[in-house]
Amino acid sequence: MKKIKILVTNDDGISAPGIRFLIDVMKEFGDITVMAPNKPQSGTSHSITFADPLRIKTIAETKHYKEYSCNGTPVDCIKLGENVAMSEKPDLIVSGVNHGSNASINVVYSGTMAAVIEACIDGVPAIGFSLDNYNETANLEASRPFIRTIVKGVIEKGIQKGICLNVNIPDVDKIKGIKVCRQGKASWQEGFDSRINPRGEHYHWLTGSFVVEEEGEGSDLKALKDGYVSLVPIHIDLTAYQAMADFKYLEE
Amino acid sequence: MKKIKILVTNDDGISAPGIRFLIDVMKEFGDITVMAPNKPQSGTSHSITFADPLRIKTIAETKHYKEYSCNGTPVDCIKLGENVAMSEKPDLIVSGVNHGSNASINVVYSGTMAAVIEACIDGVPAIGFSLDNYNETANLEASRPFIRTIVKGVIEKGIQKGICLNVNIPDVDKIKGIKVCRQGKASWQEGFDSRINPRGEHYHWLTGSFVVEEEGEGSDLKALKDGYVSLVPIHIDLTAYQAMADFKYLEE
Repeated sequence: MKKIKILVTNDDGISAPGIRFLIDVMKEFGDITVMAPNKPQSGTSHSITFADPLRIKTIAETKHYKEYSCNGTPVDCIKLGENVAMSEKPDLIVSGVNHGSNASINVVYSGTMAAVIEACIDGVPAIGFSLDNYNETANLEASRPFIRTIVKGVIEKGIQKGICLNVNIPDVDKIKGIKVCRQGKASWQEGFDSRINPRGEHYHWLTGSFVVEEEGEGSDLKALKDGYVSLVPIHIDLTAYQAMADFKYLEE
Repeated sequence: MKKIKILVTNDDGISAPGIRFLIDVMKEFGDITVMAPNKPQSGTSHSITFADPLRIKTIAETKHYKEYSCNGTPVDCIKLGENVAMSEKPDLIVSGVNHGSNASINVVYSGTMAAVIEACIDGVPAIGFSLDNYNETANLEASRPFIRTIVKGVIEKGIQKGICLNVNIPDVDKIKGIKVCRQGKASWQEGFDSRINPRGEHYHWLTGSFVVEEEGEGSDLKALKDGYVSLVPIHIDLTAYQAMADFKYLEE
């Protein structure tokens, strides 16, 4: 297989075990440039930084491996990686391995997947990997052959324009295989833990629990539950074509 | 028409002319609760705040009108509005009027539309309004009858679950009508203005220009260009169903 130019990022920050593992897996496929946030950026979604300047710290610069951190979000990392750190557009962008599932509705909140969507907007094939366990000490090793299979497949067969991949890995020692899935239905049932500080002022901590609405056959939630890697093709055209006719009455 | 409970937010902040105008338009439809960021939050997309506490400032509290600001993002505003400020779930959520277009790919970066998508995840009918002009002194008044028509329609006919509306308003004195559209294709061609500070350190300002790839018949970009309000139904299921078959080979 031809060696390619790969940009690696994440949203848990440059020192998270997930990205260290992903860098290690990716090395066999080509030249690596890492551009990752210098601190955790979970839940930043598709945020971009334009009111403050961005700063880059060089960690390693060798012929086949370059590593940088920055004070930006995952989407900023894609922009800085493509435009400042790399001299040519990457052939592939990978993001993760995220500590925590980005299956189902989590894709909307995820910084890991925002980086992937940004790459997709730029026309670069992109894959986000997430492990269904928030604990940074969770076992990543079981996912290695599956990440390799997916990356190898994407390098060989490509991804059509406007599509990127949301890959979630079950937290089991023996993964059963890969399933191509649709997004399951769920939401975060938020609550607030409201408190009063010593000066008598109210403040609120966001809390929440993940409420599954539908995890039937074919959904990413079902695949993960059954011990399979879920792979959901995601598109950047958010138009609900099937609902357009519902609003035609407003055109009169 | 029955009076309803409405939650109003935006991403330009509580004092932006756009939200003041939208509040004024919405008053005839029911009881209003405003929960908006205390400072501009453009480009924050679907960010949520969980590592820091949220604080609410009460601005007005009367029987039919309540107004609050907070230190959160637009998505935080929806969560705080629904769960802390209001005693019942709202019947409708409106966001905007944003200063600047959220047509085409802007929907992905937009805090205005993130609030709408968050409401949609929560099962509340939601509409985002944006004016195709970044200047806060731009004329909002021409949009009033069209916002009224859309809100009235949604109150009477509803929106199916999982769908929300991205409405963009052309910056013209005489708007021609409303068109139900699909998302046009465009991207931000980013650049960085890289500088060196007095201490010899490099820093980078994000810049960018909007590059239209496709604004053909039926797209929101075309409607705006022609002087029509564009209305795009947006869904929260990001699965690219038509692309699922492309990746079946990875299941082997």
